[in-house]
Amino acid sequence: MSVADEAEEQHPTLALDDTVHQRVRLGILTVAREAESVEFGFLKEQLGLTDGNLSRHLKVLEDAGLIAVNKGYAGRRPRTWVTLTPQGAQALDRELRALRELVRRLDAAGSGHPRT
Amino acid sequence: MSVADEAEEQHPTLALDDTVHQRVRLGILTVAREAESVEFGFLKEQLGLTDGNLSRHLKVLEDAGLIAVNKGYAGRRPRTWVTLTPQGAQALDRELRALRELVRRLDAAGSGHPRT
Repeated sequence: MSVADEAEEQHPTLALDDTVHQRVRLGILTVAREAESVEFGFLKEQLGLTDGNLSRHLKVLEDAGLIAVNKGYAGRRPRTWVTLTPQGAQALDRELRALRELVRRLDAAGSGHPRT
Repeated sequence: MSVADEAEEQHPTLALDDTVHQRVRLGILTVAREAESVEFGFLKEQLGLTDGNLSRHLKVLEDAGLIAVNKGYAGRRPRTWVTLTPQGAQALDRELRALRELVRRLDAAGSGHPRT
């Protein structure tokens, strides 16, 4: 019954946080990280999202303290800006560490499926 | 309005498939890839899941054709074996390519948050 040695090295997916890992939110966080702040319309376009879908995921990230959302104007046009918080930057770093470890593990196990 | 050059290089998260990318399922697929087939109890232990949670995610992966689930016996004890299908191995490869690209892009953008 003992698999002590195996169990001690935790599987990398256990270090992933669903709030950050979810596909759309991972996209939002990575785009936001590449600039000081990003505009709602730019995120929508880059990630191929609808207004509703983007808004819903921004809310989850904002509630988790990972992004700050600021509303303002560009001329007369209302604009929404999204900025990664320091907590968000740390959460994304943790995600990336886990993803690197996952890729490393799979590379070590061989690149092809044993049955193919 | 035009961001043609930016838009042509599709964001790597658009290449992620929710069926494969979801945290628990990504764990199941990566553990399954490391062996010819893996036993239900081993998966459960490696990924820190309950029976119900693991069963639910196995069903999603089986319905998508990414794994095969076989029931048998080890002595008198019933056992469930999980095997990656060739389609599952390909789907995991696509996921890994997208994750590598995501990591590459973030590395190119600098390792720290600009505000920290």
